[in-house]
Amino acid sequence: DVSNVDYKTSHTTHTFPGLVNVFAFMPGLVEKGTTDFALVTKSSLSVGLTTALISPVGLRGGIEDEHTLHIVHSNATGNAYCNYALATIATTSNLDKLQDEDILAETKYLFIPLDKSTGRITIDSIAVVSEHFASWPSDKLIITDAKGSDLASVLLLASLHSRSVHVTDVNRKEDILLISLSKEKQLKVTCDVSVFSLFFAREEWRDAPCLPTRLDQIALWERLSIIDVFSVGDIPYRLGLHLSKKVSPSSGIEETLPLLLSAVTQGRLTLDDIKQRLHDNPAKIFSLPDQAHTQVEIVVGRNALFEPCGDHWSPIASTHITGTLHRVSIHGQTVSLDGVTFASAMGRDVSGAAVVV
Amino acid sequence: DVSNVDYKTSHTTHTFPGLVNVFAFMPGLVEKGTTDFALVTKSSLSVGLTTALISPVGLRGGIEDEHTLHIVHSNATGNAYCNYALATIATTSNLDKLQDEDILAETKYLFIPLDKSTGRITIDSIAVVSEHFASWPSDKLIITDAKGSDLASVLLLASLHSRSVHVTDVNRKEDILLISLSKEKQLKVTCDVSVFSLFFAREEWRDAPCLPTRLDQIALWERLSIIDVFSVGDIPYRLGLHLSKKVSPSSGIEETLPLLLSAVTQGRLTLDDIKQRLHDNPAKIFSLPDQAHTQVEIVVGRNALFEPCGDHWSPIASTHITGTLHRVSIHGQTVSLDGVTFASAMGRDVSGAAVVV
Ligand SMILES: [Zn+2]
Ligand SMILES: [Zn+2]
Ligand SMILES: [Zn+2]
Ligand SMILES: [Zn+2]
Ligand SMILES: [Zn+2]
Ligand SMILES: [Zn+2]
Ligand SMILES: [Zn+2]
Ligand SMILES: [Zn+2]
Repeated sequence: DVSNVDYKTSHTTHTFPGLVNVFAFMPGLVEKGTTDFALVTKSSLSVGLTTALISPVGLRGGIEDEHTLHIVHSNATGNAYCNYALATIATTSNLDKLQDEDILAETKYLFIPLDKSTGRITIDSIAVVSEHFASWPSDKLIITDAKGSDLASVLLLASLHSRSVHVTDVNRKEDILLISLSKEKQLKVTCDVSVFSLFFAREEWRDAPCLPTRLDQIALWERLSIIDVFSVGDIPYRLGLHLSKKVSPSSGIEETLPLLLSAVTQGRLTLDDIKQRLHDNPAKIFSLPDQAHTQVEIVVGRNALFEPCGDHWSPIASTHITGTLHRVSIHGQTVSLDGVTFASAMGRDVSGAAVVV
Repeated sequence: DVSNVDYKTSHTTHTFPGLVNVFAFMPGLVEKGTTDFALVTKSSLSVGLTTALISPVGLRGGIEDEHTLHIVHSNATGNAYCNYALATIATTSNLDKLQDEDILAETKYLFIPLDKSTGRITIDSIAVVSEHFASWPSDKLIITDAKGSDLASVLLLASLHSRSVHVTDVNRKEDILLISLSKEKQLKVTCDVSVFSLFFAREEWRDAPCLPTRLDQIALWERLSIIDVFSVGDIPYRLGLHLSKKVSPSSGIEETLPLLLSAVTQGRLTLDDIKQRLHDNPAKIFSLPDQAHTQVEIVVGRNALFEPCGDHWSPIASTHITGTLHRVSIHGQTVSLDGVTFASAMGRDVSGAAVVV
């Protein structure tokens, strides 16, 4: 870490390694010819998220068999600006299809959708979830968005099968408590919280059901040590839809570092808290290969107005922030500087990689 | 076991040891001067259920602290016709009260009520349930009526705390599956199913929510090996209320053996299935002292009409049964013969006993 203070303006510059965009959302994921792959990986790269773990669920369908996996392969070809990993989704009827050799070799994890409030197709039966737990290779990760009592079922299955599970988009007090209890008792569970869930509460955004209540949000901040990873996820997209604003596949990506870095200035987070949750922990949990010579230079403590570069809505457009991204460089080459991106589509598929950082 | 065939009428007589009435329900449990204690223990004894594990929840309140425990002690005094054990109930606010020395010495188990459909006061917070798991002595049993996802939470806590738990009144396919999965993975979980749940389905009894659906009932029979104990519970009482029939604290007790023994004649159960689930397993699970010189003589294969001896409603009044109770004797003394009871209130409190049969 290189860190120095610029005395004239009393701000700090700091360098992170390449960061990870966990559970990156692409609405048109499995639609042939979608531009989402280019959009999401380019905006990820431009803000220092140099690896994207793509959520296997789009708005209309997901990666649930070999066929849909290959559609995404072709959507990705020539359109990947950052490294990426693919995943597959568990359904009520695809248990056998997931044993396909391509699925096993070319996906990073199995996602078990259980949260009905997301609008995603979910699995209703714990017996089916259990079959997926029994059949998905034990050295490959399982991720779920389970909330409340479904979360308890999944954690029970993880405990009974002695395997690890990652819970994405935790946003309720009850859930972070259950994860905390489970961690205390040495269950191999990790979790991520969407950055938007940390900064935007339901009550302030027309009761958006994708956001935590203010009380839930307080509970999340109080249990920061339980939160392994900060994610973008699909909350920014869903929040925009709820508010009838213009949304984009890259909604929420740009806001990630400004929100987190401003919290550093306020003393609510440290730079190391961020590095752990956007690099160290995701790299470990998802067995991501290290990205050598990749640097994300940021500036903390300098006042700025946040101006989104795209034409989609942002909850913090034209508001004051105190942390910004300065430069992203890969192999000594600057790929993004003060908001301007020079990237070419050089991203690699790291789905099969298993090099722990 | 003494077993002989009476060739003239081709029926079989058989002797069971003293049987156990698990989770015996007393509506007026904590009401001073209630006659429920006498009623329930007398009718239990008269049908061979020579030990009653009393549910700590009545219709209006339960045993939740030392004060209510002592009310039940005085209700029991001089009114116990069979041996009995008391228990206590977990509430949102009685964690500390359960550490009372009398509660710990004079109750058999902790009941955690989670099934809202029963009308009982339930605990809403998994954090509170977890605190009870952490605080209730690990050598004392925990029982719950949790269903669905609450059941998953409880089983998770049992798994995380490496302690055993007994699930009472299992009546759904999903739940017996979850218990089956957990047993497969060596979780220390046991369960009981109400006898009424085995023989009466919701669709045939005006959609009574206390009964399983026909499909759930089939799932229970298919997983008989997962069912450790047959219980009476409060289902007969709740079914009667649902149908606006005359109910009694002893509703359902008399029907227990006739229903189970008739299933023996039909080849759906063996006598050993019954002995295991009304004596061997409950004695083991609840560490009940053996009752020496106690015999329950039954007759299987002889047609009879079931005529309840009380004035309350029975779902099988005046229907054909093929199994009946002949005699209950304790220490060589007949206490019940062909429906006539000669008992005196000689029951002992075995709450503190821990002699495994
Ligand atoms: Zn500077
Ligand atoms: Zn392909
Ligand atoms: Zn293939
Ligand atoms: Zn690294
Ligand atoms: Zn005979
Ligand atoms: Zn007392
Ligand atoms: Zn005391
Ligand atoms: Zn015995």
